[in-house]
Amino acid sequence: MSSTEKDTAVASHDESCPGKRLDHVAIAVENLEEALKFYRDGLGLTFLETEVVEEQGVRVAKLSTGNTHIELLEPLSPDTPVGKFIAKNGPGLHHICLGVENIVDNLALLKEQKTKLINEEPKIGAGGAQIAFVHPKATGGVLLELSQPRAR
Amino acid sequence: MSSTEKDTAVASHDESCPGKRLDHVAIAVENLEEALKFYRDGLGLTFLETEVVEEQGVRVAKLSTGNTHIELLEPLSPDTPVGKFIAKNGPGLHHICLGVENIVDNLALLKEQKTKLINEEPKIGAGGAQIAFVHPKATGGVLLELSQPRAR
Repeated sequence: MSSTEKDTAVASHDESCPGKRLDHVAIAVENLEEALKFYRDGLGLTFLETEVVEEQGVRVAKLSTGNTHIELLEPLSPDTPVGKFIAKNGPGLHHICLGVENIVDNLALLKEQKTKLINEEPKIGAGGAQIAFVHPKATGGVLLELSQPRAR
Repeated sequence: MSSTEKDTAVASHDESCPGKRLDHVAIAVENLEEALKFYRDGLGLTFLETEVVEEQGVRVAKLSTGNTHIELLEPLSPDTPVGKFIAKNGPGLHHICLGVENIVDNLALLKEQKTKLINEEPKIGAGGAQIAFVHPKATGGVLLELSQPRAR
């Protein structure tokens, strides 16, 4: 594809992004087994595990794309956040999660910039990670999770 | 977060996914500069470049998350696919792109499995890559791009 304009940053050959990585892309699905037929069997992604996360009202299937993960989220019931999302929007892309090294520092910077947050302080998420969600109003319509893994 | 059920695949410690990786997550935005204020300045992602892709009717800002990319898509006009997406859904997550080694083999396998495709054959995309879109009906509501980079 030809491009008619290209504005490359000075740092364009340095693709490092200190302390951050895309941890996962989460997809809301109606039925995990049906979705796995496509993502695991059709697309050939590596299936890692399924897990029930009662606190978020979902059953999660985790797949690897090598460099990051895709999480398929099946609601445990219609009155869960993901159940309501599907009722309103249908199944599809639900949120993305960015792994960070120091979530407290990240949240402080975002608050300084008056960024609208769902969680002002980190809460404990899957695997003991500290997590916080940024409000879609601040991100251009994207539900964005920040996650700092538990120190080992 | 505690889990009440965990079903781990035998291969769960091997996260390799031969020949595939998440190439980018694409987000439809109304205004690139506004979106960059959050993703580059607020979140601290590494800005790589902006590019106008006339064929797709978008101006694209590419950011690195270290392990993959986030692409912000601003429509060049309301009657482009991304312009129509925003008019219907508002800004937000638009598609994900999976990099593959042999797109012809991937499409053949998907067709064998009666997977609904938007592009039955690869077409030439940005940077000379061969690309094809899988229909959201086959993916659980996700617009999914497959992309095989041009051989160097």
